Amino acid sequence: MKGFAMKKIGETGWVEKPIPKLGPLDALVRPTAVSPCTSDVHTVWAGAIGDRHDMILGHEAVGIVEDVGELVHDFKPGDRVVVPAITPDWGSLEAQGGFAMHSGGMLAGWKFSNFKDGVFTEFFHVNDADANMAHLPDSIDDASAVMLCDMMPTGFHGAELADVEFGDSVLVIGIGPVGLMAIAGAGLKGASRIFAVGSRPKCIEIAKEYGAEQIINYKNGEISEQVLRLTEGKGVDRVIVAGGNNDTFIPAVKALKPGGVIGNVNYLGEGEFVRIPRTEWGCGMAHKQIHSGLMPGGRLRMEKLMSLIEAGRIDPSKIVTHRFCGFEKIEDALMLMKNKPADLIKPVVFIK
Amino acid sequence: MKGFAMKKIGETGWVEKPIPKLGPLDALVRPTAVSPCTSDVHTVWAGAIGDRHDMILGHEAVGIVEDVGELVHDFKPGDRVVVPAITPDWGSLEAQGGFAMHSGGMLAGWKFSNFKDGVFTEFFHVNDADANMAHLPDSIDDASAVMLCDMMPTGFHGAELADVEFGDSVLVIGIGPVGLMAIAGAGLKGASRIFAVGSRPKCIEIAKEYGAEQIINYKNGEISEQVLRLTEGKGVDRVIVAGGNNDTFIPAVKALKPGGVIGNVNYLGEGEFVRIPRTEWGCGMAHKQIHSGLMPGGRLRMEKLMSLIEAGRIDPSKIVTHRFCGFEKIEDALMLMKNKPADLIKPVVFIK
Amino acid sequence: MKGFAMKKIGETGWVEKPIPKLGPLDALVRPTAVSPCTSDVHTVWAGAIGDRHDMILGHEAVGIVEDVGELVHDFKPGDRVVVPAITPDWGSLEAQGGFAMHSGGMLAGWKFSNFKDGVFTEFFHVNDADANMAHLPDSIDDASAVMLCDMMPTGFHGAELADVEFGDSVLVIGIGPVGLMAIAGAGLKGASRIFAVGSRPKCIEIAKEYGAEQIINYKNGEISEQVLRLTEGKGVDRVIVAGGNNDTFIPAVKALKPGGVIGNVNYLGEGEFVRIPRTEWGCGMAHKQIHSGLMPGGRLRMEKLMSLIEAGRIDPSKIVTHRFCGFEKIEDALMLMKNKPADLIKPVVFIK
Amino acid sequence: MKGFAMKKIGETGWVEKPIPKLGPLDALVRPTAVSPCTSDVHTVWAGAIGDRHDMILGHEAVGIVEDVGELVHDFKPGDRVVVPAITPDWGSLEAQGGFAMHSGGMLAGWKFSNFKDGVFTEFFHVNDADANMAHLPDSIDDASAVMLCDMMPTGFHGAELADVEFGDSVLVIGIGPVGLMAIAGAGLKGASRIFAVGSRPKCIEIAKEYGAEQIINYKNGEISEQVLRLTEGKGVDRVIVAGGNNDTFIPAVKALKPGGVIGNVNYLGEGEFVRIPRTEWGCGMAHKQIHSGLMPGGRLRMEKLMSLIEAGRIDPSKIVTHRFCGFEKIEDALMLMKNKPADLIKPVVFIK
Repeated sequence: MKGFAMKKIGETGWVEKPIPKLGPLDALVRPTAVSPCTSDVHTVWAGAIGDRHDMILGHEAVGIVEDVGELVHDFKPGDRVVVPAITPDWGSLEAQGGFAMHSGGMLAGWKFSNFKDGVFTEFFHVNDADANMAHLPDSIDDASAVMLCDMMPTGFHGAELADVEFGDSVLVIGIGPVGLMAIAGAGLKGASRIFAVGSRPKCIEIAKEYGAEQIINYKNGEISEQVLRLTEGKGVDRVIVAGGNNDTFIPAVKALKPGGVIGNVNYLGEGEFVRIPRTEWGCGMAHKQIHSGLMPGGRLRMEKLMSLIEAGRIDPSKIVTHRFCGFEKIEDALMLMKNKPADLIKPVVFIK
Repeated sequence: MKGFAMKKIGETGWVEKPIPKLGPLDALVRPTAVSPCTSDVHTVWAGAIGDRHDMILGHEAVGIVEDVGELVHDFKPGDRVVVPAITPDWGSLEAQGGFAMHSGGMLAGWKFSNFKDGVFTEFFHVNDADANMAHLPDSIDDASAVMLCDMMPTGFHGAELADVEFGDSVLVIGIGPVGLMAIAGAGLKGASRIFAVGSRPKCIEIAKEYGAEQIINYKNGEISEQVLRLTEGKGVDRVIVAGGNNDTFIPAVKALKPGGVIGNVNYLGEGEFVRIPRTEWGCGMAHKQIHSGLMPGGRLRMEKLMSLIEAGRIDPSKIVTHRFCGFEKIEDALMLMKNKPADLIKPVVFIK
Repeated sequence: MKGFAMKKIGETGWVEKPIPKLGPLDALVRPTAVSPCTSDVHTVWAGAIGDRHDMILGHEAVGIVEDVGELVHDFKPGDRVVVPAITPDWGSLEAQGGFAMHSGGMLAGWKFSNFKDGVFTEFFHVNDADANMAHLPDSIDDASAVMLCDMMPTGFHGAELADVEFGDSVLVIGIGPVGLMAIAGAGLKGASRIFAVGSRPKCIEIAKEYGAEQIINYKNGEISEQVLRLTEGKGVDRVIVAGGNNDTFIPAVKALKPGGVIGNVNYLGEGEFVRIPRTEWGCGMAHKQIHSGLMPGGRLRMEKLMSLIEAGRIDPSKIVTHRFCGFEKIEDALMLMKNKPADLIKPVVFIK
Repeated sequence: MKGFAMKKIGETGWVEKPIPKLGPLDALVRPTAVSPCTSDVHTVWAGAIGDRHDMILGHEAVGIVEDVGELVHDFKPGDRVVVPAITPDWGSLEAQGGFAMHSGGMLAGWKFSNFKDGVFTEFFHVNDADANMAHLPDSIDDASAVMLCDMMPTGFHGAELADVEFGDSVLVIGIGPVGLMAIAGAGLKGASRIFAVGSRPKCIEIAKEYGAEQIINYKNGEISEQVLRLTEGKGVDRVIVAGGNNDTFIPAVKALKPGGVIGNVNYLGEGEFVRIPRTEWGCGMAHKQIHSGLMPGGRLRMEKLMSLIEAGRIDPSKIVTHRFCGFEKIEDALMLMKNKPADLIKPVVFIK
């Protein structure tokens, strides 16, 4: 089978590989829509997860079940499914303890284009299929569905980690696709005022549609100072970090009230230390809690989030700005993600 | 001053009383809008809280500060304020433990028309004013504001007690004003499918506007059977009880998945025992948790909820179906509440 | 192989059955110590889970691994293991949602002597062995270890469900083996005063050793009245129900402070309704929360609890009052459990 | 009245001041035992909270009520009381939101020897006396009681912030008085193995008495490497930071499992940034949560913790290594705290 791969750090290309073999609990899926992610770009060109050779890229896909192992009960060839970017080993000690995304080790629930080939291929392998795939209803189209793999669960996890409650004011730092989903998620968890940090016009437009009240542009001054000005010096109840770098926690902590919570879902790709400003962190006494983590994966998460789409509470396809048709367009889509034109939020490649 | 009072069980009338005296932390408020509550009806005609003599009724009011005690810092005469139905003693052990509504004893944070005169009068007394009143912004009109006193915090507390999370299916039993607010609150906490039990057309209309997907009419069969049918036998993740009686927990438990949560905000006015169906409660083993409680009061709660109105997340004035003008119309409004015509959800009396 | 079975409701006896077949994730274990449980008695003589024919009894066992399926990684023949009474399907939606004990349906994580043969046999079958067995260190003897299967996780779950915090006063109703473990668990979660309800001298002795301050005998008056007397009318912060019947929630609610929590781990075997006293439940407004549930099973739970034994924080073997030697003594041990002499807490049968 | 004060940064001395005036909710207390704290040393000699002039030091005291304001109901002259270091304004928005220690601003619940005179004086002032003092039973002596003011609530808060659960392995960094209380608190919340970092023999002795299994000496290598070695490379479930500096979070994060929690109760007195190691923090994806905060104060907290002493669950007086008699010995005790001899944990001055 053919796949679009990272050949080594800094180099991509098409590869030919054998179709994956299935264990008794596994499934083989033929993708019908995939979406490249900033992570794919970081994996290839920044070497974010170290070197890999001829590893097929991609971890966001919906598709049709091609085959299943003999102990798979709930899926059969021909079923339309969504597969999350994170596919845990549910029996692991970490999963039993509530952290399935770290099953078998830190971040090790993330398997696609990390420990095994990803989804930019003709057929991809899903471990523990009954637990890690979800049936897609007809009412959800592929564009929305493929946002269920990573963007929506990651952005919504930001709102969960930040523990947003009724009437909380929320600062969302970053309005790329994950940040936009975090804005929507914060609203769906009961936020009142949402301030969002960003500058690209297309992103700002969608941020407002998802419920952001104010857009803060870092070019207009230090972020936390702008937030404090907008809140009469009080700061916000919650911060969701969905972009930036190791130093983004500096304005995050400064803009936060005592007793507030930061939820980080931004992958911090480089540098040695994340920095927390000591004074505004109350010398370690302010109850400004710092939560962070990889999105939860698995079937239940997919079913819960897709029920929000079905119920009309959220339309994640708003962040899909570019649509490609044809398997071979995966390459173009990934390069688009790498080049990041001003009007890009998220591309999707529809396959047949 | 004049007030509309419960003269004794079963009898109401206007009374003349001296203006309340203020302690150093108290305030005196002149109401500009009040709303009678089902509780007022139960208090008078069902004797729900026992006998009372010449006690001024009412616990839902917005108004203008008339006077404040010498230790009140944040309010002054002329300020427009909302006052919650529950005005706790914040220094009490119960409040320190997180249950301010029970400050000084079970339910004892409920003072208006319970332990002291209520708000159906020319001037009412607020204990611990800095902690129990909130400034009202111009953007919120009196009709919306008076729904902040009890309807919205009670209904929203139902969603909190039921611990609604992203993608939960929720059954709301009862679509009176509190149930309607519970529907809105469940949606704002991330519910996907919301099933609501009720039959009055006006209530059904608003239930749908607030996000109910399906209306269940008890006349069409046992409630839990209807729910199980609508959910392919699975039941719902959460139940909010906002109406009914001691036996309403029977369908609630039956309709609930293992691991689910019931949040009750319905005042159970009579009977000796609430009944839980043993088998469907998993013989006490099903993790079908039963939460219940009086609404949280106080200033912060008011500020948080009003920020949701300001941010356009909710319009609680949709439940105001009847509007009266003039102080003396309080009596008519209360009788309307007692008689409960088919098109009534909630009346408001605007005073001057 | 031979096993001691429920032949039908009301009748037990030895049966001969084929050795269970293993799937790829399963294991076969040869028990070295087993303990009959009150549930076994209810299963046979009260028909608590309905009729069963020639079903081997028992769900508390430690033993030696005899064989494993080809996908089992962490265990091999000869390993000494403890197997919890609850062995969930960890990939199920319920487990993904945090309620593994209800995997596949309410209480369906309970498989031994319920949906399949139990452990009173020469070899028993364990599903998902890597996730449902735990290695036993030499430092823990079989008597302590077999208390890890059900008594300790169930009693400790009572303290978890009741959400015991630093300095809480706790009422434990029932001082059979589960209640005694609940006392120890409440102490290990930070309880200060522990009141325990019971009357048998041997149980009282151990209750005190595990940290109960006061023993309440129902023969001396209504339980909640005794509790209120001992607490100057305030009641307790938490109640753990580890015995009694559907009406045990009446004193539990009455003895509880507003804002308090009841944690039930008592299997309610008969009757149609559990009854909650309306008035003392604050007419549904008191925030007296009612939690209940089956013990969590699985490997992590076993490892966590056994680490408490290893660290010397708890000695669960104190509740083992009767010791039998030899496989065939299983029958005697079960009959002892049925007859429940005054000095019995828990019997163990050692099989070598 | 006489008091021992910070005259300016770097200088202490006795001062003469008028007896504080009482508002209607306040109380005046005559101390019978006080204890200097490391914070007092930092306040004076490191200028940790900025400059102060002739400010009476001390925030740990038990004593006898001398006078009360006219609205104080629960205390009268002659009552023996303990007063926590943190005395919040309970009606504040922060307190209503669950963070009373930040009432009126970050850390602003800390009033003694910060915003007003402290307790090293003949009479000290307590705001909101009914809410911020607690009656001391005869069974608790002054040495134990004065540990209730700060050491025990701070150390125990570390265990709360770290969310210790049954069977958790816990690393406690720092075994000064707060760290020792954190060890005891972790044990009382259900920790199994407790590793403690420190080197002073007297502290090690008490750490073991309070339940530490292993002492880790930083002189023997990097802390997290030692922890990983002791845990077969797995790390610990929880870390409590009770000593060190801005870089202590480096070994804390490295020693922690994914899904684990750090609870910091160490006051970070200098430096610009707290540093979090990016890689071991899972690039912001590891769910290694960082909690931190000032101790909760107030009456309920005092009552809850003292009930643990009464119930015999903890003896905090074990950390009292030096005892002084006489008011004028406050100076010696503070200098002892400053000089920190090897055998010092905590001094107490008894004042008759």
